[in-house]
Amino acid sequence: MNRNDLISLRKEAENHLVNELLPFWTSRMIDSVNGGYITHFDSNGNDSGEDEKSLIAQARCLYTMSSAHRAGYGNGKYADLARHGADFMIDRMWDREFGGFYWMMDRKGNVKIDQKIVYGLSFAIYSMSEYTLATGDPRGREYAEKVFDLLQKYSADTMYGGYWEMFHRDWTLCGPGSMGGDRKTLDVHMHLMEAYTTLYECTGQEVHRRKLLEDIDLLINRIIHPVYKTGIPQFYKDWTVAPQIKFDIIWGWDRFSPDGLKGNATDNTAYGHNAEFAWLLIHALEILQIDKNNYSELIRIVFDHTVNNGIDYEFGGVFVEGPHSGGVYDMEKEFWQQAEVLIGMLDAALMFGDEKYFEAYRNVHRFVIDKMVNKGVGEWWPLMSRQGVPIWTHMSHSWKINYHTVRAMVQSIERMNKLIDKNISV
Amino acid sequence: MNRNDLISLRKEAENHLVNELLPFWTSRMIDSVNGGYITHFDSNGNDSGEDEKSLIAQARCLYTMSSAHRAGYGNGKYADLARHGADFMIDRMWDREFGGFYWMMDRKGNVKIDQKIVYGLSFAIYSMSEYTLATGDPRGREYAEKVFDLLQKYSADTMYGGYWEMFHRDWTLCGPGSMGGDRKTLDVHMHLMEAYTTLYECTGQEVHRRKLLEDIDLLINRIIHPVYKTGIPQFYKDWTVAPQIKFDIIWGWDRFSPDGLKGNATDNTAYGHNAEFAWLLIHALEILQIDKNNYSELIRIVFDHTVNNGIDYEFGGVFVEGPHSGGVYDMEKEFWQQAEVLIGMLDAALMFGDEKYFEAYRNVHRFVIDKMVNKGVGEWWPLMSRQGVPIWTHMSHSWKINYHTVRAMVQSIERMNKLIDKNISV
Repeated sequence: MNRNDLISLRKEAENHLVNELLPFWTSRMIDSVNGGYITHFDSNGNDSGEDEKSLIAQARCLYTMSSAHRAGYGNGKYADLARHGADFMIDRMWDREFGGFYWMMDRKGNVKIDQKIVYGLSFAIYSMSEYTLATGDPRGREYAEKVFDLLQKYSADTMYGGYWEMFHRDWTLCGPGSMGGDRKTLDVHMHLMEAYTTLYECTGQEVHRRKLLEDIDLLINRIIHPVYKTGIPQFYKDWTVAPQIKFDIIWGWDRFSPDGLKGNATDNTAYGHNAEFAWLLIHALEILQIDKNNYSELIRIVFDHTVNNGIDYEFGGVFVEGPHSGGVYDMEKEFWQQAEVLIGMLDAALMFGDEKYFEAYRNVHRFVIDKMVNKGVGEWWPLMSRQGVPIWTHMSHSWKINYHTVRAMVQSIERMNKLIDKNISV
Repeated sequence: MNRNDLISLRKEAENHLVNELLPFWTSRMIDSVNGGYITHFDSNGNDSGEDEKSLIAQARCLYTMSSAHRAGYGNGKYADLARHGADFMIDRMWDREFGGFYWMMDRKGNVKIDQKIVYGLSFAIYSMSEYTLATGDPRGREYAEKVFDLLQKYSADTMYGGYWEMFHRDWTLCGPGSMGGDRKTLDVHMHLMEAYTTLYECTGQEVHRRKLLEDIDLLINRIIHPVYKTGIPQFYKDWTVAPQIKFDIIWGWDRFSPDGLKGNATDNTAYGHNAEFAWLLIHALEILQIDKNNYSELIRIVFDHTVNNGIDYEFGGVFVEGPHSGGVYDMEKEFWQQAEVLIGMLDAALMFGDEKYFEAYRNVHRFVIDKMVNKGVGEWWPLMSRQGVPIWTHMSHSWKINYHTVRAMVQSIERMNKLIDKNISV
């Protein structure tokens, strides 16, 4: 890692963050009529009009504004934008009868889908905790703790461990199969680690620490592959691997065939998830003040799987997914996987000092800056061909918002600063 | 089962309950100075003066009075006595800062031990639910639900399933070993089944049903012996069998050597526990409206283990404990084991119609009425030699109260009525 290269890459990331990405959002996200955030934009960044405000998108915008303020950007402006979103979530999205945030509202704040979905609620904990850490507004902590308490009461599985994930409005469990009531996922348990880390950072409470440690145990001992340490997407309640299916309530745009099935449904891992898991684990250990070197062998295996299988050394960027034992099924390029691998590769470089991780970072950084950023608009294309031609072209919708993109830049800049400070030159 | 025998045994049980057992308590249990119940009596039934009011003893007295009222005894008097105890628990034993009932008070209602012990809290749920079912006072349900919610938040183990059992006042987990913070027990998980059954009967809430079903799954798949279906007393957090040790906070008077160890610490099962587990399971299934015949093979194995190993066909009554595979280590007679086997054997007779269960009931009934009842005083001797000579002689203390004895009579009478109604004659 050449110091000048690091400084140059950091400058590119800062420029993208401060002059493209954040302005894209701050100039158009505020719904000054109905409150909350507008979250649907087309390829030109124009409001594409979908009448929905999803829990994920509102919470992720709240996280983005809070974290950008906390990281020192915006001169206080982002704190105001965060408060605007927190007001809407608390005043309009909170279920005062049964507790918890609704899954989907219309723009005016009427409930469209009243289910309680743990994936979304994990982002409520994450964003509300980050909001209090950033601004000191105690409401964030209050609502993060309320959601945490509800998850312990209704969602924890006291037989097999882990969390049930899909509930009706009154917290009765959803049915099986595509209704999701009999499944457990990597997605939810990984994002709970992310959420509990920031909740514990915010509160210092022993119970938040304990549940974070238990979730880390679940991820390491139940959810990642016993040999390859790669993430397994879906399980039955007793942690036997379940074929990956499409749920009725979706929280991302994973690709399935029209009948909701997936090729290689039981041997499938996403590089972005794996890198995200590893860097979120490192971050959790830092907040917990546990020596991350205790987990270094595991972390190295995960990062090496991404480096050896996920990076496209020909066209740049990160592939979508492949088998646990290595190889690639899907060579297209999803925005969020690029984002998470950026942070992960810098963490790997910091932890192990190996040039190959930095080269992987540089590869993905170049693909993002050169191809994935929608030039003149500022956000990233959601899905590109292997070569870098846009396939999907919206800039934002309920499942594609600013959380991955802004966080990747904020966190990568922070890590590059550490690398520059350490003056590591392998 | 001869109908006249049944009628005669029922009459003995009714006489003991109505003319000996209940009067023993109602004539001396009320602390009219400090509130709550006096729970320490010597062999003559005189107040033995120990300055303590334990969560277990207060909750068990509340249960006893509530259940006797609900079963139709006392013409309303027991409801008043129950309210007297509920007032003390709610007004003096509830921790207004951290939530939960304290473990031990003095008679005046000052806190002596402020820990949160799940064994005791399970009886708080059980008794408060029974109190509302018996009297309609909504405070019982309110506090039962509060404790349930606290257990889900602080006590459930989201990694291995089940519940952590020993906490400091602020719900931080106790240390390992004799502090109990790294162990899980049959006792707690069985009494949670009992508690959740009555809570669900009281509230009808889906989450109470769900956690009851999960606890039943734990008992069947983690806690009872995989071959013999007998209860295993203690486990480590991951459900590997732990050698049975004495905890710093005790909730019963199990016998250990002075150094807190037990002979045969890893191969030890108590007949009273096993019969209690089986009849509490049958009761839970009835409240859940699940066909108990789905579990008939399991239930029969458990009852047969008691019939074949636990009953003393020479001197009468039930032994203390023995190995899982059969045989006896300890031939003394503990009061609570007699009580639970009485109910269990009648349930077995009702479910399977086999004369051997009724004969086992008759055997234990005779031992209790003829030897264990302290004649002229009314309560049972706590521990007797195999032949029926008292070893311990107190009538009550914090761990020996009216819950087992009164419940055994109330529940046995109810079951004998069913047998008489069915007019079963094998």
